[in-house]
Amino acid sequence: MTTSLGPVSPTIGRIPVVDVSPVAEAGRFPAKAVVGEAVPVRATVFREGHDAVGATVVLTDPSGVDRASARMVDIAPGLDRLEGRVVPTSTGTWTFRVEGWSDPYGTWAHDASIKVEAGIDVELMLTEGALLLEKAARRKGSKGIAGVLAEAVAGLRDHEHNPGSRLAAGLSPAVRAALDAHPIRDAVTASPSYPLVVDRPLALAGSWYEFFPRSAGATYDYETGTWTSGTLRTAALDLPRIAGMGFDVVYLTPVHPIGTTYRKGRNNALNAEQGDPGSPYAIGSKDGGHDAIEPSLGTFDDFDAFVADARALGMEVALDVALQCSPDHPWVATHPEWFTTRADGTIAYAENPPKKYQDIYPLNFDNDPEGIYREIRRVLQVWIDHGVTLFRVDNPHTKPLDFWERILASVRADHPDVIFLSEAFTRPAMMQTLAKIGFHQSYTYFTWRNTKAELTEYLAEVSGEQGSWMRPSFWPTTHDILPPYLQATGVRGFAVRAVLAALGAPTWGIYSGYELVEDVPRPGVEEQIDNEKYEFKPRVWGIADGIGINVLLGRLNEIRRHHPALRQLRNLHLHPTSDDALVAFSRHLSAEHSPTGRDDTILVIVNLDTYNAREGWVELDLDALGLEHGRPVVAHDVLSDDAYEWSSPAFVRLDPAVRAAHVIRLVSP
Amino acid sequence: MTTSLGPVSPTIGRIPVVDVSPVAEAGRFPAKAVVGEAVPVRATVFREGHDAVGATVVLTDPSGVDRASARMVDIAPGLDRLEGRVVPTSTGTWTFRVEGWSDPYGTWAHDASIKVEAGIDVELMLTEGALLLEKAARRKGSKGIAGVLAEAVAGLRDHEHNPGSRLAAGLSPAVRAALDAHPIRDAVTASPSYPLVVDRPLALAGSWYEFFPRSAGATYDYETGTWTSGTLRTAALDLPRIAGMGFDVVYLTPVHPIGTTYRKGRNNALNAEQGDPGSPYAIGSKDGGHDAIEPSLGTFDDFDAFVADARALGMEVALDVALQCSPDHPWVATHPEWFTTRADGTIAYAENPPKKYQDIYPLNFDNDPEGIYREIRRVLQVWIDHGVTLFRVDNPHTKPLDFWERILASVRADHPDVIFLSEAFTRPAMMQTLAKIGFHQSYTYFTWRNTKAELTEYLAEVSGEQGSWMRPSFWPTTHDILPPYLQATGVRGFAVRAVLAALGAPTWGIYSGYELVEDVPRPGVEEQIDNEKYEFKPRVWGIADGIGINVLLGRLNEIRRHHPALRQLRNLHLHPTSDDALVAFSRHLSAEHSPTGRDDTILVIVNLDTYNAREGWVELDLDALGLEHGRPVVAHDVLSDDAYEWSSPAFVRLDPAVRAAHVIRLVSP
Repeated sequence: MTTSLGPVSPTIGRIPVVDVSPVAEAGRFPAKAVVGEAVPVRATVFREGHDAVGATVVLTDPSGVDRASARMVDIAPGLDRLEGRVVPTSTGTWTFRVEGWSDPYGTWAHDASIKVEAGIDVELMLTEGALLLEKAARRKGSKGIAGVLAEAVAGLRDHEHNPGSRLAAGLSPAVRAALDAHPIRDAVTASPSYPLVVDRPLALAGSWYEFFPRSAGATYDYETGTWTSGTLRTAALDLPRIAGMGFDVVYLTPVHPIGTTYRKGRNNALNAEQGDPGSPYAIGSKDGGHDAIEPSLGTFDDFDAFVADARALGMEVALDVALQCSPDHPWVATHPEWFTTRADGTIAYAENPPKKYQDIYPLNFDNDPEGIYREIRRVLQVWIDHGVTLFRVDNPHTKPLDFWERILASVRADHPDVIFLSEAFTRPAMMQTLAKIGFHQSYTYFTWRNTKAELTEYLAEVSGEQGSWMRPSFWPTTHDILPPYLQATGVRGFAVRAVLAALGAPTWGIYSGYELVEDVPRPGVEEQIDNEKYEFKPRVWGIADGIGINVLLGRLNEIRRHHPALRQLRNLHLHPTSDDALVAFSRHLSAEHSPTGRDDTILVIVNLDTYNAREGWVELDLDALGLEHGRPVVAHDVLSDDAYEWSSPAFVRLDPAVRAAHVIRLVSP
Repeated sequence: MTTSLGPVSPTIGRIPVVDVSPVAEAGRFPAKAVVGEAVPVRATVFREGHDAVGATVVLTDPSGVDRASARMVDIAPGLDRLEGRVVPTSTGTWTFRVEGWSDPYGTWAHDASIKVEAGIDVELMLTEGALLLEKAARRKGSKGIAGVLAEAVAGLRDHEHNPGSRLAAGLSPAVRAALDAHPIRDAVTASPSYPLVVDRPLALAGSWYEFFPRSAGATYDYETGTWTSGTLRTAALDLPRIAGMGFDVVYLTPVHPIGTTYRKGRNNALNAEQGDPGSPYAIGSKDGGHDAIEPSLGTFDDFDAFVADARALGMEVALDVALQCSPDHPWVATHPEWFTTRADGTIAYAENPPKKYQDIYPLNFDNDPEGIYREIRRVLQVWIDHGVTLFRVDNPHTKPLDFWERILASVRADHPDVIFLSEAFTRPAMMQTLAKIGFHQSYTYFTWRNTKAELTEYLAEVSGEQGSWMRPSFWPTTHDILPPYLQATGVRGFAVRAVLAALGAPTWGIYSGYELVEDVPRPGVEEQIDNEKYEFKPRVWGIADGIGINVLLGRLNEIRRHHPALRQLRNLHLHPTSDDALVAFSRHLSAEHSPTGRDDTILVIVNLDTYNAREGWVELDLDALGLEHGRPVVAHDVLSDDAYEWSSPAFVRLDPAVRAAHVIRLVSP
């Protein structure tokens, strides 16, 4: 009987490295990061028997050069789960791998400590330690630690001292530090290399401000009862106010010509009245389609001027992409095959039976996928060429995912700085897969997470492994969503949700009018009355200062700008509190990963109860905060500018009449 | 500016199919199944918009031919998670894939039901239904359902009837059944094909009986105070008794020559007394090593005779593989490089500092991995050639995993019927990875899971996705483990744990003496006093009948043999009970997957409290039991042979003085 020898290169390797994260379906979809992000890499690394094991994460740049590495540490004792963080420094497709290795110094240090103490094999253990350190000193690249090692070897071999002293020479902090920095790595076993797509920082962290340009500067003539639309020129006049609040992105709802057939009236009325401007999401008229500008808003020159003004104020422009057509869209005539023709020869309206939306023809991507792809790609290029650097994609989950994957890959290849935000409020699988196939950011369920239990669970979810693919964007409201909490809590509630959005996720967004606490719903729905989609809504900003939400938004953006920890995602940590309306979370960025070169630690404590003062204890997880145990800390509230000395647990009292939250910078004195 | 067109073949596909299970690290390790196992395959399948989606799991045999498929059903509404079960019919490396598809009939049925009722597009919807069914009838392979479809089309087009009746023709149970069997599948999108290694049924389901052959038939001479060892011949005399209890496998502790240097005495004493036989795990003497038989046990002829006797009784023989050596092992002289030589020139003993095991030299696999691999492979072949078909591997987690992966692949290639059981009682990552790299079965934490909370969690864990790689073997005790629960509960506790082991996992094992309720621990440890490793332990079986555990073991094995549902793993379902000592779980195998062609459903209810009668309600999950709602069921207790009519919730009372458990066969009358 002959026997086969089995595979020559077993897949498991000498030191097993399994379940590496972030890896989606073994690299079918790349993980995401941005320049400057401290990316947590995890793996399960273990070995046979009792000997010590170590692991290193190695980060490789797009040209294949190893750029960074980090020793991984145990984050789940007993489960062999290790983590290390590495920071990519440029955009492009990086890779990472995990190396598991045998740690002979760790093994010797463990065994020798026990055996010398117990008087077992004493001389032998000291000799073996000396031999090991001599071998370590002979390695390439060990010159810098050769002195430390030689001193240790001399100590181990010094028969004039007692065994305890000799052992101590081999276990000294200096030796440990030298071998932490240059570990003796035997039997190094590498995982596969996994992809990590690195985008510019705005893909992860930014503050967005949404508005309808036609509302900004729209005027009503009480004598004639007619409206005059705001224009891109009048909208541009609002930019300094928005920039003054510290926003990074101005997001414009669609600016294209609006259809007239079955145009919707105010409050989604089936028939528009004379003068109703129609929904900018019913795109297309005789004046053009997705590549054109609604004439009442102005021209491409006006658009270019708007972009230039925004840029001069330090802001970029995001445009809405709503891939649907009014019956008047030019494509209906030129490309009827891009729609669904029914058995009676008519074009299918958008429907959600029994509802029918006669102002909208949805695209049918299956009859001519190539043609539609090329046209949409062309349309996007029009706007990219006019300075748009971000797209907010309306309802991407009603279009095929293979279409988006192709569009996103193409734009990413040609314009790596262009960022797409997915507006999919739908089931988890769809939202997460849209993120995996290439959307840079995603709207989230944050808008409906109100209680302490809901918020803590959700903050952990979006900041955990899911954050390797789906970058969350937190919006307290949108033009279509006024959640129940904000219908009932007034200014105080708007303050609470602003703090949670601005500090709970690195990207957040505000829909215009939030400063004015516009909180009146259309009866029975989670939407504002007089939805701005169907009418002009110029606002009187003069009263905003008296309300103060605008000041809060500005302060939050300023704090975000000053604290790099708040512009990271996967560094969030939740801290227990004794009160069920007090939520406490922190973001910590260690000095080695911070652009400032210093630890940056912010602790946020929010009172969700807008009616009652709440007080209680916050149990600070000092390790997660990067603070030493047993030492007091200085807590500086960067919202109120108060400062006090603290220890854990910390007592807090938040009265909603005074403030919604503490935003505390923690430092060891 | 030119724009790139993006990838021509997007990875996501037209109908997204993601997170397919069972897939370990994208197929780095294959999933496992056995011939006749109903393998659950899961995937997240969804699509854009509101149209209906379907999915099929397809099972492909080792030659590449699609052999089975199943329509997948939603198992987590709102999460797009689907499951289908398929049954491989031969050994070898099969593959499976999931196909997602657009379901135009499902879309039409949903929309038409609503719209015809609401009077919207009535004629158009009926026409579109007729066109769709006409198209369905024109497909290849649709001859069998052409009549049903033609009738439906005629009904849809029949203007003499009202729209409701016409619609009903298109939605009739006959049409639905025809299209369930032959669905209209558009835009079929296949996942990758993933590997599924299929073993023979004994790899999943079997009952094992462990014994020390030297104990069976050992005799003590009271006059001389000396022992005479049992032999393979005397051990064979015990086989009819074991077979009589219905066991499938007899597992022998090591049969090799035992070292004399530092031989351990009774109860692990450092020094053996005259006549102590030594531990069979201290392998190797002047009489040979792992390829030899301890002379006092007999010869290879005796071994062959033992195997032949077992086979004649319907049992297979498992042998212990303990890869460690006594200092007297032949390898120590012939291959000193297979051990660790210390700085003083001595060979390293096994150690767990400060403990030192001077009767054992551990192998060092790193100096000559190729040489050790070839030798161990040769040794295994010796025993395979002598009829051993199963190996119980002692402490595999103290040897390198790449060694095991290679050994297991080689034996699997040459002898696909040979089964390896991993005896790794250690941390989860190691245990699960040993299973993933090829061990057929694994010892588990079952031995220490005693409470209702522990047991329900653990039963769910081993029967869930983990079961795709790690096949659990449940052992109430082993020769090294007497858990605290069994030190304190006597016969009643031994009955409880036997029922849980036999019915909680498809493979279970009993260590000899369980029939005699050997429950006295060595003080302070979870081990029997007078551990059989260090002494002869002949047993007086005559008293076993009076205790009755042997009868219970036999009855459990008989029930397992009659009920294929009990020989499956991933069909376990837990049912809530109102009492915290009552655990209820079921195993259901539907007629389509059962070798009997009939539904097979067993419900087990165990009282964990061995002191008090417990009573309460069991909430039966009728769907999981394959039973219809609203109909009574007949409950037949196959342990006690009682029968009664039942409905959910069902009342149960279990008095440990009377019985440990109900084992109930459920049938709809």
